[in-house]
Amino acid sequence: MQLNHINEQGYARMVDVSNKEDTFRVAKARAVVCMQASTLAMIRDGAIKKGDVLAVAQIAGIMGAKQTPALIPMCHPLFLSGVDLKFTLDDESARIIIDSEVKTTGQTGVEMEAITAVTIAALTIYDMCKAVDRWMEISEIRLLEKSGGKSGFLQSKKQ
Amino acid sequence: MQLNHINEQGYARMVDVSNKEDTFRVAKARAVVCMQASTLAMIRDGAIKKGDVLAVAQIAGIMGAKQTPALIPMCHPLFLSGVDLKFTLDDESARIIIDSEVKTTGQTGVEMEAITAVTIAALTIYDMCKAVDRWMEISEIRLLEKSGGKSGFLQSKKQ
Amino acid sequence: MQLNHINEQGYARMVDVSNKEDTFRVAKARAVVCMQASTLAMIRDGAIKKGDVLAVAQIAGIMGAKQTPALIPMCHPLFLSGVDLKFTLDDESARIIIDSEVKTTGQTGVEMEAITAVTIAALTIYDMCKAVDRWMEISEIRLLEKSGGKSGFLQSKKQ
Amino acid sequence: MQLNHINEQGYARMVDVSNKEDTFRVAKARAVVCMQASTLAMIRDGAIKKGDVLAVAQIAGIMGAKQTPALIPMCHPLFLSGVDLKFTLDDESARIIIDSEVKTTGQTGVEMEAITAVTIAALTIYDMCKAVDRWMEISEIRLLEKSGGKSGFLQSKKQ
Amino acid sequence: MQLNHINEQGYARMVDVSNKEDTFRVAKARAVVCMQASTLAMIRDGAIKKGDVLAVAQIAGIMGAKQTPALIPMCHPLFLSGVDLKFTLDDESARIIIDSEVKTTGQTGVEMEAITAVTIAALTIYDMCKAVDRWMEISEIRLLEKSGGKSGFLQSKKQ
Amino acid sequence: MQLNHINEQGYARMVDVSNKEDTFRVAKARAVVCMQASTLAMIRDGAIKKGDVLAVAQIAGIMGAKQTPALIPMCHPLFLSGVDLKFTLDDESARIIIDSEVKTTGQTGVEMEAITAVTIAALTIYDMCKAVDRWMEISEIRLLEKSGGKSGFLQSKKQ
Repeated sequence: MQLNHINEQGYARMVDVSNKEDTFRVAKARAVVCMQASTLAMIRDGAIKKGDVLAVAQIAGIMGAKQTPALIPMCHPLFLSGVDLKFTLDDESARIIIDSEVKTTGQTGVEMEAITAVTIAALTIYDMCKAVDRWMEISEIRLLEKSGGKSGFLQSKKQ
Repeated sequence: MQLNHINEQGYARMVDVSNKEDTFRVAKARAVVCMQASTLAMIRDGAIKKGDVLAVAQIAGIMGAKQTPALIPMCHPLFLSGVDLKFTLDDESARIIIDSEVKTTGQTGVEMEAITAVTIAALTIYDMCKAVDRWMEISEIRLLEKSGGKSGFLQSKKQ
Repeated sequence: MQLNHINEQGYARMVDVSNKEDTFRVAKARAVVCMQASTLAMIRDGAIKKGDVLAVAQIAGIMGAKQTPALIPMCHPLFLSGVDLKFTLDDESARIIIDSEVKTTGQTGVEMEAITAVTIAALTIYDMCKAVDRWMEISEIRLLEKSGGKSGFLQSKKQ
Repeated sequence: MQLNHINEQGYARMVDVSNKEDTFRVAKARAVVCMQASTLAMIRDGAIKKGDVLAVAQIAGIMGAKQTPALIPMCHPLFLSGVDLKFTLDDESARIIIDSEVKTTGQTGVEMEAITAVTIAALTIYDMCKAVDRWMEISEIRLLEKSGGKSGFLQSKKQ
Repeated sequence: MQLNHINEQGYARMVDVSNKEDTFRVAKARAVVCMQASTLAMIRDGAIKKGDVLAVAQIAGIMGAKQTPALIPMCHPLFLSGVDLKFTLDDESARIIIDSEVKTTGQTGVEMEAITAVTIAALTIYDMCKAVDRWMEISEIRLLEKSGGKSGFLQSKKQ
Repeated sequence: MQLNHINEQGYARMVDVSNKEDTFRVAKARAVVCMQASTLAMIRDGAIKKGDVLAVAQIAGIMGAKQTPALIPMCHPLFLSGVDLKFTLDDESARIIIDSEVKTTGQTGVEMEAITAVTIAALTIYDMCKAVDRWMEISEIRLLEKSGGKSGFLQSKKQ
């Protein structure tokens, strides 16, 4: 087994997907932001008002998904046909769960776009709350499921 | 206590730092990539060759730090006077620890740049290894310490 | 009737166009820059020389069209198969009329690309002339017509 | 009087500000989005909910301000120390007035950043509402006032 | 014969490729970096270690290829299905030959992407070695061959 | 002697310039585009008209200079206080000589910005003329002189 991003000279390359078929592809990913209970309360309060932390995180996540090929060196530039994010506020554990869903029709998957979306959304929450909670932590960034392409539908066993 | 990124209308703004003094500022951050032991071995093997996964992650992290103000909506555009990353391969737990250090002289800190650097480096490791280990997980993204500015030197209690 | 950019949580999303068909699409848009008669004369004079204000505005408009998905949060990244701009110097009213035409074959329209093109061209004219005419005004930024997609050909009633 | 963006060969150049002093600079600009009364009502209704059109426009405007030197060919890249936008809903005329304020300490002004901020915010409102009101129009994009630099404080006579 | 990038007004436009068919397209390009023999030796030595100059150049070249439409004003934004670079160290002439291969399926070719890839890789080698060899020179940037599209396979006579 | 872009782990880093003083810095660079005599004639003819190839190349070069830190992995993001390009048409050798001058006041030099400016200008000339002259070649990309910083004024011996 080999890392297929490495060329014959041992350097990284953008994997050649020229012979892959265009298929409809979906990827879902997650990130979790852990914080103080008081920070979560503050975000929840803001969310009743007009412009809140999660609204900014949502937009940053969507725009971040579009920047994926400019950020991740070996990612293919591609068209995205849909990007959405969902936030779940978990009061018990004082954390926000961010879930993304990204869609495309193309020769390669959108796993990285889905993961980048939740990651940039999480960083934005951190940025907007760091003045009141500097030691927040982002964790559990991972792929939840993907469909389309040669490997078809795959789902993380960890739920 | 209030989230200072919110203006009078309740919308997000770029915090006004016009009255802050230019000081020398450093921020250090960390991210951890958890994987299968075989994936870590594969990365370690690659690292003896010329172009390896960590070399790509290193460059992606540095370039990502420079993109921070384009990614995080309320971040100030700023000059960076130094960016470096360090990778620690932890065989026992089959994970890679990514540490960054970012420096500037300016009116605002580089915490987000340091965090973005380790995050983009982590996403790049995921991207380059996902063909062999799809369910890798990125966690513990957090600030380690910062210095400079009004709040001076601050260090995470968690080590 | 509802704003279709809003998801179930009430946040903005990139509208899902996965089920739309690829069709050939064209959009035309306009912007108008109002200025002092002497500024218009200066631009006209420059236009006889080699490198003029309108040449810069033309290029900025075309490059701006390509940046649309990076600027407008909910815009889909897409391929453009043609972008052109036309400038009409209206001496009577001391204003420049900028018209754009943008083409693509895809699942979503290029209205925003056409509007962004004329807008960035207009901002560039302002930037290059502001040293001699600081209070210029940009107005009448609007879609002129669009074709392709489910709604087919539509034209502004205002001409 | 001459357009100072033109070099000896007659081509555009980035004006040399090397000899200008660093001063504190502020610029304010405005854009107006005209729409159907029902569209304005829809935006106002959304504004009571969590994620609304104006929240997206606000963020797009701030991020747009940061992209100014990448969009406007002859603009200098610079640090911004503060960016904010304000929206005024004018029910009588069915229009939204967008006002921006941008600050920096540097060798050149932030007029273009202030104008770009309101412009991108206006384009975003158009984009999010075009499904219900395709013929909206953006107008009155102009500088309101500026301070700092050699010319000091200047204010538009038109209010 | 005419430059097809020029519109009726005499200004540059993005050539309309709407009527071109989607075909599989490949382009290969080259750049050469001339340096002191001692610099080449230093690069070769580094290449045995983990993170070397050529690894950075490789990644910069691939990322540069993706930025082509943002850099070259009249280039069409497009999907890339594969990008790779190869470095040949020529000890006799103390130079590094950089070859790229870029692939897409689309309405327009990837010559500019292939040329941009080798160029940015060459600039990166210069940047990383300029502290030890300031007067290095980059030359022979040119297309080697292209295939696909109306003109089919074409190869440079100069080898 | 060592490549100072390499850190202790052997990976690339952004060189730490935190301790360097802000000085006024200028860099001049050159690129040469070799073409068929008929192509040069065509460019010269266009140059008498309004929007010509060199006007586009000029703007692309200036905008490219601003993108340098986003393109060259280890380059520092910085403010530029002036960018200009000059084109010399050499009929005898059927080539265009592109010279750039870039200025800043900062902790690090603008050699890469000056070189990137001429390079992107050269690529743009190639792009706009490749339909009539596919085998054009870009060469002699090099630094002409630099001033400012610890090493002061330095000039290429090759003229």
